[in-house]
Amino acid sequence: MKDILAAFGLNIDLAVEAHELLRGAADEEVPGVIEQVRQGEYVKVNTIIIKDENGAKRMGKPVGTYVTIESPPLKINDPYVKSEIIEVMEKSMHSLLGNRLKPGDTVLLVGLGNWRATPDSLGPKFIEYSPITRHYHQHAPQALVEGMRPVCGIAPGVLGITGLETFEVIKGVVENVKPAAMVVVDALAATNVDRIGTTIQMANTGIQPGAGVGNARVALTEEALGIPVIAIGCPTIVNASIIAHEAIRKFCLNSGAMFNDIQAVEATKAVLSRFGGNLGVTPQEIDDIVENTSRILAMGVGKSLFPGIAQEQLELYAT
Amino acid sequence: MKDILAAFGLNIDLAVEAHELLRGAADEEVPGVIEQVRQGEYVKVNTIIIKDENGAKRMGKPVGTYVTIESPPLKINDPYVKSEIIEVMEKSMHSLLGNRLKPGDTVLLVGLGNWRATPDSLGPKFIEYSPITRHYHQHAPQALVEGMRPVCGIAPGVLGITGLETFEVIKGVVENVKPAAMVVVDALAATNVDRIGTTIQMANTGIQPGAGVGNARVALTEEALGIPVIAIGCPTIVNASIIAHEAIRKFCLNSGAMFNDIQAVEATKAVLSRFGGNLGVTPQEIDDIVENTSRILAMGVGKSLFPGIAQEQLELYAT
Amino acid sequence: MKDILAAFGLNIDLAVEAHELLRGAADEEVPGVIEQVRQGEYVKVNTIIIKDENGAKRMGKPVGTYVTIESPPLKINDPYVKSEIIEVMEKSMHSLLGNRLKPGDTVLLVGLGNWRATPDSLGPKFIEYSPITRHYHQHAPQALVEGMRPVCGIAPGVLGITGLETFEVIKGVVENVKPAAMVVVDALAATNVDRIGTTIQMANTGIQPGAGVGNARVALTEEALGIPVIAIGCPTIVNASIIAHEAIRKFCLNSGAMFNDIQAVEATKAVLSRFGGNLGVTPQEIDDIVENTSRILAMGVGKSLFPGIAQEQLELYAT
Amino acid sequence: MKDILAAFGLNIDLAVEAHELLRGAADEEVPGVIEQVRQGEYVKVNTIIIKDENGAKRMGKPVGTYVTIESPPLKINDPYVKSEIIEVMEKSMHSLLGNRLKPGDTVLLVGLGNWRATPDSLGPKFIEYSPITRHYHQHAPQALVEGMRPVCGIAPGVLGITGLETFEVIKGVVENVKPAAMVVVDALAATNVDRIGTTIQMANTGIQPGAGVGNARVALTEEALGIPVIAIGCPTIVNASIIAHEAIRKFCLNSGAMFNDIQAVEATKAVLSRFGGNLGVTPQEIDDIVENTSRILAMGVGKSLFPGIAQEQLELYAT
Repeated sequence: MKDILAAFGLNIDLAVEAHELLRGAADEEVPGVIEQVRQGEYVKVNTIIIKDENGAKRMGKPVGTYVTIESPPLKINDPYVKSEIIEVMEKSMHSLLGNRLKPGDTVLLVGLGNWRATPDSLGPKFIEYSPITRHYHQHAPQALVEGMRPVCGIAPGVLGITGLETFEVIKGVVENVKPAAMVVVDALAATNVDRIGTTIQMANTGIQPGAGVGNARVALTEEALGIPVIAIGCPTIVNASIIAHEAIRKFCLNSGAMFNDIQAVEATKAVLSRFGGNLGVTPQEIDDIVENTSRILAMGVGKSLFPGIAQEQLELYAT
Repeated sequence: MKDILAAFGLNIDLAVEAHELLRGAADEEVPGVIEQVRQGEYVKVNTIIIKDENGAKRMGKPVGTYVTIESPPLKINDPYVKSEIIEVMEKSMHSLLGNRLKPGDTVLLVGLGNWRATPDSLGPKFIEYSPITRHYHQHAPQALVEGMRPVCGIAPGVLGITGLETFEVIKGVVENVKPAAMVVVDALAATNVDRIGTTIQMANTGIQPGAGVGNARVALTEEALGIPVIAIGCPTIVNASIIAHEAIRKFCLNSGAMFNDIQAVEATKAVLSRFGGNLGVTPQEIDDIVENTSRILAMGVGKSLFPGIAQEQLELYAT
Repeated sequence: MKDILAAFGLNIDLAVEAHELLRGAADEEVPGVIEQVRQGEYVKVNTIIIKDENGAKRMGKPVGTYVTIESPPLKINDPYVKSEIIEVMEKSMHSLLGNRLKPGDTVLLVGLGNWRATPDSLGPKFIEYSPITRHYHQHAPQALVEGMRPVCGIAPGVLGITGLETFEVIKGVVENVKPAAMVVVDALAATNVDRIGTTIQMANTGIQPGAGVGNARVALTEEALGIPVIAIGCPTIVNASIIAHEAIRKFCLNSGAMFNDIQAVEATKAVLSRFGGNLGVTPQEIDDIVENTSRILAMGVGKSLFPGIAQEQLELYAT
Repeated sequence: MKDILAAFGLNIDLAVEAHELLRGAADEEVPGVIEQVRQGEYVKVNTIIIKDENGAKRMGKPVGTYVTIESPPLKINDPYVKSEIIEVMEKSMHSLLGNRLKPGDTVLLVGLGNWRATPDSLGPKFIEYSPITRHYHQHAPQALVEGMRPVCGIAPGVLGITGLETFEVIKGVVENVKPAAMVVVDALAATNVDRIGTTIQMANTGIQPGAGVGNARVALTEEALGIPVIAIGCPTIVNASIIAHEAIRKFCLNSGAMFNDIQAVEATKAVLSRFGGNLGVTPQEIDDIVENTSRILAMGVGKSLFPGIAQEQLELYAT
């Protein structure tokens, strides 16, 4: 699959998919990588730790911890499922940040993506639904609940609309605002449609804006920015190439035809010719999925940043 | 292909695709169907006339005239291409309506689809960009250019949001407003991604709301409403099932593997399991494509309804 | 004040303001009109009953019952205040409808106004946040909770955008859908800025679309439509003429200058010349006020239409 | 008037209004200030030069050149008026920038304000309609017309939503992107409703974000950022206090009552009590006015930054 993705100019966004792929191919442990799975009442929590450069090279992802929350379809909008996801997110934020964040420290939220394109609007919507408090500290401290830290947020837009690399905007904000930590939310691409609306990945590795659509940009990482960067992403599309390719593989498996990767890539490219690899597959419910998911992310992150404050109260600080 | 579409619960929205399919299968004329092709400077105009019930049955579409305008990709936003499309639309409106519309007659525009889901927002956007004049006739006739007819418009929303069938809304408006003709715009599904952002279909047959996504509803047709109904549609998605299925066929063709329709459908369904047939493939530029296309449709229809009035002037009557 | 409003071509939308005015002028009971006031924990509930044509003529409003809920500013977004408002709305719906609505009866929700103009978008947003169930009854009854009635909704747009009178759209929907009752939501104009974001009026009298901005249209009333019509409205603007006029009156009162209505109207018109009476005054927080209020209205109405179903569950049926 | 504005905590955004006020009060030239007026075919161009600190102090505005374009109401959407405005803007940009901008220099566009509040969305909409080219220089130079400079743009949002001061975002972008000049667009407040939708102010002085609504922030000026900053603003609201106050003054003038500033302020505050000075007066057409104006600003600035390139072509680079 990695070769196929490379042939289509694509990356694997989800550590859990990269790991499945390696496990599947070799049917053995991946050196340098540890996986733990915990089953909650409604959600499954998968933690993958890439321990060293060897594991990083094999996984095609940087060293760090990747928590993947898998739930029943979020489009179903079940309040109990939501509660458990928010709780798991809150705990995962604490374990990913460790003791790097002190009470009263400022946190910068970043929502990547294009608010005008539904599957890519997860990040901007996350900012919209997140509690923002930094301006009250300076201008109206009486509006804050005792102990609320300063939290600010920005949706920097996308290169095609602003002409600015995300890093050029965020680096400047970090230098001027000096937050103690950053949380970046972005829409991801999966290799399996079942992942859309069911999966949240949280990692302490930072993020490569646009990585999921084949562009390398200057990274939003602790190395580049000097502060811990928690990256949160949810798959909202699958590339059409992958689906076509998978269908060919499945057909060969079932029909006994001889599968050939190169010919499968060629057939797929022929069918998708005019738009190259740039065709996304999304369910018709993508609007509701992005809406629900961004609200859940905002509350999961919000509860971890403002411990002890009720969700109903946090929503008063959302814009 | 028709069997495959049926296996996936899909229809063919474009007459030109239905015709290609029949021609391709039999390599001969389709009885009861005439096709004419005219090449303009930038655009190709294909006219298919389904003459009788025999042709209608074979094509899976009602008796009538289907004009298909094929242009270079609209996302490129070339002003000369746009001008020619608008001109062709204006002429096609006249030929499709014949002498059914007299000067001064009222026209009702209907924009089907969901304005919150980008690929489905073509109809509502068409209404937004269309010149609307009916209210001036009653309340401010001095604001009209001499000879402007009354034109009104409605975007009735979709069943999932309103709980109302489109027909239930439109039938009532027609009964109360008594227009002499109706123009309905809707987003279509194609079987080929090359059709997205390059194709406009205009027909004098009316429309079956939701037909393209597998639902049968009471129709918006002259038979049901008592007035001529011009149906205009542009493909904005291709169903993911079709792309996967085509990729399998192409692979077999290239690799010499034996193609088997039933197994191809099964493999495709397996890959797309969770969302059934309801996964749409759209290009990342779908926002721009829908925006440009809806403006072009509004002007093409507007110029035909208000002959002799300049485009710049018509835009003043858009909302 | 009534003369002044007439001089500016304006109406009084709120019965409670019309009543204050009459009471204030005469300092006595208004014949044909009864007023009851009840103080809740957070909200005050004022019920005005116009008993006969004499009262109707004096009040400038049709015979019927007007419940006005006055609360602390909704922009403060207090969950306890919201709960009490929703509960009061639920009870008021029952008392306004009496036994006119049976379990299982279909209800049509109508959201008047222009979703593109913030202060006028209350109605369309109400539809967006309301639970809609009618389509499930026909297409997916298993998705319904036992006992849920069919509810559908439409936002018909405004004359300036569609060229259609609201009545022309709604009458047709009522004829085709045959609901047992209708609930219409619209933004109102107040004569006092303190009313913005603090007041909900509910009446069993139906509604005159556009009445608040000086237009007479065919009415949405039981007389015209044959079913009970509950009208719900909240003030979101005050006309600038009224504010200017009030400031003059207040100035004269304080400074001892002789107040003169005709000269006050003239001075006001001179200051507001270019836009005539069409200048609205809104607070900067109007976005949040409309957002919060429309959600509260949707839940207040929703809880009364679906008795015994929890708010969290109802939200799953909102679009 | 300045005292009154101060009493209400307001500033005068338009130099032309500040100048009228001083001229009117003293009926003589204002020392340190030069005014030139030129009448075009449809538009009037007023240039005010504040020459020294004496003039700056009297005007309450920094030393610099302020070009004010006054046109017939933009809501009328006349194509000839638009053309002349765009032409005047293009020339004014050149005269305000002088020789500070070389061919090939990078320019940063900044759109201040809140895209969710109509009267405040002028800046974000300006960015949306402006041609953006910087990313093509690095990633797809073949998509550029020969000689196009790099232009990028950002709408940083407002403090209440992001928790970030505008300066904190823009300073970082300037440091990382190193543009040669900056153009900042913001919605202004006028003291006269006739200014809404008819007035464009362009100045070489930079801008004080939020100054128009009474907040002092770190400035977007050449002094603070090290590059020339052209500030462009259009009035979209008038504060309700000013309208009420003006009505009182007019009434006194007409009726012969004794006018008293302190009592007029008191009466106005009493009428507008709950929302303090924060009530804006806008015409009902504000949506169309902001839409049209932002497009004109984008083209006026765009034509000056890309000399010799046709408007139709520039629109292809807008997002």
